[in-house]
Amino acid sequence: MQQASTTDRPAMATSPRRRQLTLDEYFEGVIARDVAVLPRALTLVESTRGVHQEMGEQLITRILPHTGKSIRVGITGPPGVGKSTFIEALGTYLARSGRRVAVLAVDPSSGVSGGSILGDKTRMAHLSAEPNAFIRPSPSAGTLGGVARKTRETMLICEAAGFEIVLVETVGVGQSETMVDEMTDCFLALMMPGGGDELQGIKRGLLELVDVIAVNKADGDNRKPAEVAAKQLERILHALPSQGGEPPTVLTCSAREHESIDQVWNAIEHRHQRMEELGALDERRRRQSSNWMWTIVDEQLKQVVRNNPAVVEMRGDLESQVLEGTLAPEAAARQILEACGLK
Amino acid sequence: MQQASTTDRPAMATSPRRRQLTLDEYFEGVIARDVAVLPRALTLVESTRGVHQEMGEQLITRILPHTGKSIRVGITGPPGVGKSTFIEALGTYLARSGRRVAVLAVDPSSGVSGGSILGDKTRMAHLSAEPNAFIRPSPSAGTLGGVARKTRETMLICEAAGFEIVLVETVGVGQSETMVDEMTDCFLALMMPGGGDELQGIKRGLLELVDVIAVNKADGDNRKPAEVAAKQLERILHALPSQGGEPPTVLTCSAREHESIDQVWNAIEHRHQRMEELGALDERRRRQSSNWMWTIVDEQLKQVVRNNPAVVEMRGDLESQVLEGTLAPEAAARQILEACGLK
Repeated sequence: MQQASTTDRPAMATSPRRRQLTLDEYFEGVIARDVAVLPRALTLVESTRGVHQEMGEQLITRILPHTGKSIRVGITGPPGVGKSTFIEALGTYLARSGRRVAVLAVDPSSGVSGGSILGDKTRMAHLSAEPNAFIRPSPSAGTLGGVARKTRETMLICEAAGFEIVLVETVGVGQSETMVDEMTDCFLALMMPGGGDELQGIKRGLLELVDVIAVNKADGDNRKPAEVAAKQLERILHALPSQGGEPPTVLTCSAREHESIDQVWNAIEHRHQRMEELGALDERRRRQSSNWMWTIVDEQLKQVVRNNPAVVEMRGDLESQVLEGTLAPEAAARQILEACGLK
Repeated sequence: MQQASTTDRPAMATSPRRRQLTLDEYFEGVIARDVAVLPRALTLVESTRGVHQEMGEQLITRILPHTGKSIRVGITGPPGVGKSTFIEALGTYLARSGRRVAVLAVDPSSGVSGGSILGDKTRMAHLSAEPNAFIRPSPSAGTLGGVARKTRETMLICEAAGFEIVLVETVGVGQSETMVDEMTDCFLALMMPGGGDELQGIKRGLLELVDVIAVNKADGDNRKPAEVAAKQLERILHALPSQGGEPPTVLTCSAREHESIDQVWNAIEHRHQRMEELGALDERRRRQSSNWMWTIVDEQLKQVVRNNPAVVEMRGDLESQVLEGTLAPEAAARQILEACGLK
C-alpha cells in the first residue's frame, strides 16, 4: 500500500494536468500564448473555490497591462436567427484571414440545460478546427453577474494571450445583453428577414445598445424580404434618438451561404476604428471598468441577501402576503433587511 | 415660571398641530378624508426617523385594503415640453369635472436645488386652488429608491383618502422613469412638436414604458409641426415591438390653450378600462408589488454599502486604480465587499 502511494505521488507531481501551476507559471504561460496553459488559466478564473478565486484575481490584475488590444464584439439575436451558424461563419472568415479570434458566451441558463459544453463543440465543429480560433463554452450556471464576470475575465485572458478579436455571444435572457454591452466595444444584433414585423424578435431596450444590425438568411427566397426588412429597419433606427453616436449600420447577409460576412465585419471594424480615432473607445472602456466594479458589488450583494438562510425561510411567506395585499412591500423589504442585520 | 409652564402644557397638548397623532387617529383621519390629517400622514411616511418610519409602515399596512381604486398615471417629458403647464391643465380639467385628483412628483434632485416646494406651489397656482385637487411636492432628496418609495406610499395614502386619480410626475433623471412605471398603471410621455428629430427628447428605454404620447404645444404656428410629429411617431411606434400590448396612443394637445386635454385623458382612461377588463391591471399591480419589495431591498443594500465608512474611505482610491488599469474591477469589488464584511 505504501509502495503504491509512493509510485503514485511522483506521477501526480509531474503530470502537467494535475500539478497546480504557480501564479508565475499561469502568467507566463498566458503571455507566451501557451495552448496548454490558456484553458487552465480560464478554469482558474472560473473556479468558485476561495483559494482559486483569489489566485484568479491576482492573475487578472497581473495580466491587465497586456489586455485591451482586441476588438470586443457582443453578438445577440432571437432564437432561430442562426446565431451559431453566423458566429461560426464570421469566426472562420476571420481565422482564415489570419486573425486570432476567441468566441465566448454569456449564457446564464447553460447549467440548467446541462448541454452547453457539448452543444458548443458540436455546433461550431468547423470553427473549432481552425488553428487561429478558440471557443470557450459558457461557464456553468451561476448568477448572471457571476457568469458575466467570468466571461469578462475570460475575455481579458484571451486578450493577454494575443487574441485580436473576441466575440461574446449572448442568449438574450434577462439582463445578459446589458451585461455583454458593458464588456464589449460594439454590439451586433442578428435579425430575421420578414415583412412588417421585422423588429418583433428584438427587445426594445436592446435598440439603444446596437451598433450593427445584420439581417441574416438573405439567401434564396428570403433575399428580397431580407433587403426589405433592412431598409425598414434603417428607416426606423434613423428616426430613433441616437444617444450621441451614429445610428446603427444595417446590412443583410447569409451565414449559411457565407455571403456578405466580410461586409458585416467591415462595418464592425470601421465603427471600431472611428471610435478609436475619436477617443471614444478609451472613454467607453474606462467607464465600463468603473461601472463594472459596482455591478459586481451590487450583484454579489443581491446574492448575499437572497442566500441568507433567514431570508430563504421567510421570503415565500412575505411574497404571498405582498401579492395578497395584506402586507406592504415596504414593510416586507424592511423585514428582509432586518433579517440580514442590515437595517 | 411654574405657572407659565402649567399654562403652556395644556395648550401644547390640545394643539392639533403639535400633538403626535396615534396610529388609529392617522388611519381614521385618512379614511375619513380629513384634510388636516392627510398632510400629516404624508409627513409621517416621509419621515426618516426610526420611530416614525415604523409607525408609517404600520399605517401603510393598515390602509392597504382601502387602496388600489385610483387610476395611477406616470407622466414624463423632456425639459421645455411644458410639463407643469400640462399637469396643471389636466389636473384642473379633472378636478372641475368632479374627480378628486392628487399630483405627486418623483424628483431625486429636488433637495439639490432646494426650491422644489416653493416651485411646485408657484407653478401650479391655479390647480392648487381647486378644492378637488391635492398637490404634494417631492419629498426632500434621498436615494432614488428612497424618494420613489415615499412617493409610492404617498400615492397609497391618497388612494385611501379617496383620490380617484393620481398623477405621478417624473423629472426623467436616471432611473426615475422606470421607478415611476413600477408604481403606475399607465405612462404618459409629453413630446415636442418638431420635424425629423421628434424622438430626440425621449430616452429610448422609455419607449417600452409609454402607453400614451401627447405632442404638446400644438397651437399657433406649431399646430402643423405637432401633427406631423404625431403621425411620424405613430408610424415608428407601430413598427416597434409591442411587448404584448397595444402600441401607444399618439395625440396632439395644447396645455397652454387647454386644447385636447380631454382627449389625452380619454385615451388614458380608455386604456385603463381595457386593462381592467382584461385582468391585466390586477396582474400588473400584483407584479409591481412583488418587484417593489425587492427593488427596495436592493436599493437599500446599495446605500448600506456605499455609506459604509470603510467603503467611503477606500472608494476614491479603488476607482482611480480601476480607471488607470492597475487594478481589476473584480478585485476592487472584492475589496469593497470584504470591507463590509460581506464576502
